[in-house]
Amino acid sequence: MEKPTCNSTHSKKAIQPLHYLSRAEATSIEKELLEEFKFGHQQLIEIWGHASAMAVTKVFPRQSLSKKQPTLLVICGCEQNGAIGLVCARHLRVFEYEPTIFYPKKSSNPLYRDFTTQCEKIDIPFLSYLPTEVQLISDAYNLVVDAMLGVEDSLGELSEPYCTILATLKQIRIPLVSLDVPSGWDVEMGSSDGISPDVLVSLAAPKQCATRFMGKHHLVAGRFLPYDVQKKFELNLPEYPGTECVVSL
Amino acid sequence: MEKPTCNSTHSKKAIQPLHYLSRAEATSIEKELLEEFKFGHQQLIEIWGHASAMAVTKVFPRQSLSKKQPTLLVICGCEQNGAIGLVCARHLRVFEYEPTIFYPKKSSNPLYRDFTTQCEKIDIPFLSYLPTEVQLISDAYNLVVDAMLGVEDSLGELSEPYCTILATLKQIRIPLVSLDVPSGWDVEMGSSDGISPDVLVSLAAPKQCATRFMGKHHLVAGRFLPYDVQKKFELNLPEYPGTECVVSL
Repeated sequence: MEKPTCNSTHSKKAIQPLHYLSRAEATSIEKELLEEFKFGHQQLIEIWGHASAMAVTKVFPRQSLSKKQPTLLVICGCEQNGAIGLVCARHLRVFEYEPTIFYPKKSSNPLYRDFTTQCEKIDIPFLSYLPTEVQLISDAYNLVVDAMLGVEDSLGELSEPYCTILATLKQIRIPLVSLDVPSGWDVEMGSSDGISPDVLVSLAAPKQCATRFMGKHHLVAGRFLPYDVQKKFELNLPEYPGTECVVSL
Repeated sequence: MEKPTCNSTHSKKAIQPLHYLSRAEATSIEKELLEEFKFGHQQLIEIWGHASAMAVTKVFPRQSLSKKQPTLLVICGCEQNGAIGLVCARHLRVFEYEPTIFYPKKSSNPLYRDFTTQCEKIDIPFLSYLPTEVQLISDAYNLVVDAMLGVEDSLGELSEPYCTILATLKQIRIPLVSLDVPSGWDVEMGSSDGISPDVLVSLAAPKQCATRFMGKHHLVAGRFLPYDVQKKFELNLPEYPGTECVVSL
């Protein structure tokens, strides 16, 4: 009988099921990152926005796009999810895509204002309104990034202009990429009649609603999460290859 | 005669010589990023620290290291260059290297304190002193990252503890990676008897001292720079492949 090889003693850890976060857990993780680990808001938004852009490039490499121009539309809400969308758009511009931003309710938060200026100053166009005729959107863009509503916005009734935008997004036939929580979905329960994104990019770790995600590509952007946080919340995140900041599930 | 193909009308731009920045230009670029483009200090340090870590992984992939453990020592100064070193160390830990930090003069700047906490909380060890016996350093680490002194520190006389550390670094025989400006070098003139890094990671764009760099690997981490800044300062930076944030010159 052969001796066990070195590898057998260093065998890979048993694969534990991925943990899907409740709203309370998602909020706790962010609080812990900010208060215990002293990450900054600006820093987290930069990290998540960059990782979201990387996710888009992985699922939709520029050469794979159906239209001649690598256009895409990023729809940003007025809270943190929207700020992540702004950073995502900026990085996509750097990666030589042609993002356009629709940001109907601009935030007065100075931090989010700065992220907006960064986009304006590199000449990313901002739409003043979203066409309700979905064909116009499908003709102009290869895909839409939904960075409207996140964990913090999913409590209570949906307000305008988001209701109208979601009604439009439910009809589009080009790919839809949602960041963290598909807009209009409940963080835990998802939505039975909401939008149906083709791609979901979970930030930090997947939320419970991700179990209802029926699209093709689910990616997680949480490589930077301290090991102690991953352990405390039993995230059981998959291993990230090489130096990648996102991983496909 | 064949008709010119489409490509011939979209021919690549003629390669212009890289522009090496004076101290004044380097300072102006950073001022412009902060004041005009509204980048934040925290954001820039995160971007540069991450790119520096990516540069280390490119030149020294984990599998290529000579020691069994992927150890490395990051020496951080008390200004911005040191903060970038702290972020670099954090990302290297995430990439499964084993960084140790030597940070002899901790800054009281709250922003830099937060970057320090992020490292402490993920259990990166901090050295309380640097052995003057260089063999001890060579035995313990695969390489040293020099994040001590940058553009803002290179005016005037060198003070302690940096003089002693530089004397040690001049003697080490393991690879030395300098971030932006090799410590102790003049931003423009370089140094005739200073340290001789093997790798130089220029942040944003190379400084004039980089023309005196004799090491093997010179990388630039400035992909995020707005096009208008690149044009205004005639940087003529090389193209970054794919979604890479660093490029080798």
